[in-house]
Amino acid sequence: MWQLYQFPLCPFSRKVRLMLAEKGIAHELVRESPWTSRDEFMDLNPAGQTPVLVEESRGIVLIDSDAICEYFEETIEKSPMIPGTASNRAEVRRLAAWFDEGLHREVVNPLMNERMRKRLISRDAPDTKTLRVAMTSANAHLDYMDYLLDHRRWLAGPVLSLADLTAAAHLSVADYLGGIDWRGHKQTTDWYSVMKSRPSFRPFLTERMEVIAPPAHYDKVDFN
Amino acid sequence: MWQLYQFPLCPFSRKVRLMLAEKGIAHELVRESPWTSRDEFMDLNPAGQTPVLVEESRGIVLIDSDAICEYFEETIEKSPMIPGTASNRAEVRRLAAWFDEGLHREVVNPLMNERMRKRLISRDAPDTKTLRVAMTSANAHLDYMDYLLDHRRWLAGPVLSLADLTAAAHLSVADYLGGIDWRGHKQTTDWYSVMKSRPSFRPFLTERMEVIAPPAHYDKVDFN
Repeated sequence: MWQLYQFPLCPFSRKVRLMLAEKGIAHELVRESPWTSRDEFMDLNPAGQTPVLVEESRGIVLIDSDAICEYFEETIEKSPMIPGTASNRAEVRRLAAWFDEGLHREVVNPLMNERMRKRLISRDAPDTKTLRVAMTSANAHLDYMDYLLDHRRWLAGPVLSLADLTAAAHLSVADYLGGIDWRGHKQTTDWYSVMKSRPSFRPFLTERMEVIAPPAHYDKVDFN
Repeated sequence: MWQLYQFPLCPFSRKVRLMLAEKGIAHELVRESPWTSRDEFMDLNPAGQTPVLVEESRGIVLIDSDAICEYFEETIEKSPMIPGTASNRAEVRRLAAWFDEGLHREVVNPLMNERMRKRLISRDAPDTKTLRVAMTSANAHLDYMDYLLDHRRWLAGPVLSLADLTAAAHLSVADYLGGIDWRGHKQTTDWYSVMKSRPSFRPFLTERMEVIAPPAHYDKVDFN
């Protein structure tokens, strides 16, 4: 059985969890707090980051959320998540990178620093200016998603793809940390309701991080 | 014909140029300075980053260095750069991500800020402390590459792969900016000599950025 070393509010871990669930791949979660740099974990992944996926009996160690998703896209035919022509697939990968890089750097990572790492690790108060900038960026990202969803059924085209899983993973962490104001983003809100109601997403709705509570709408599929 | 919007010292542009050359794909270079946020370029890529690859006659726009490399790996059989089994391919992608993220964040990006962007854009003096930290990180990265090359012919295994192209692209920019001390890294130096002598790499040796000159060893395949 695959073992996934992951952290509950790590968006890259969530992306892999969505991928594994959509593909129907049995796995066990192993909680890892990457900032502790535990020796056994650093031996597995010198980059010291979650997620890492291990199949001990076959001696396989997969590292990096993209490498993991591509691995299962290649080996499991069920529910293609990088579907279509080479150009379609390039668009899925462009958007997955857009969310993994831009949305993470501008929104998710600052929220995790201010509202999670400072709470759990340094015990400093969050910096309100950083939070304000992150929430403004979140708004710009939702605008871009609204624009995409005005033209397409899903973010990268007519079918669900890794672009949707990636965006949902990052937004779910930002939303848990109270960094998303959904008002005025009907297209993205509707899309996110649909994502939230997928069986692959449902475990996130009930998981809680100790000491950090999500806003009241977090686990409501219809936001109410 | 493909048109590559690129910047000479952008490591992600160099990675794509290596990929295109190894695959034998004809293309034309279009120079783009991403920090100017030129309207026509922002229309092509809302992320405002190089590289972008365009085939106007077929209406194809490819964005993001990974999406571009995967596109050609899928469509052009010649010279596979993500070769082998699904596990081998995962290792190539893990290392490409390692260099694109860690080596870029800790070494290449600070060098580009201090020695290129400040020179070209803000006209501030480089910060010596930031440069020192970047050069220390570079040393740690070369140690890890030495370790890989102690066990393998190429970085990800027995054959040349996207991991080598990615590492060479980033190191070539760091080396141009005088950020690499090669002493004490025999395995990586030997590997880099071989990379430098490949036809795909040779154009980088003679290209020069205005106002920024590389160190004397930069264009010497044998470093002398």
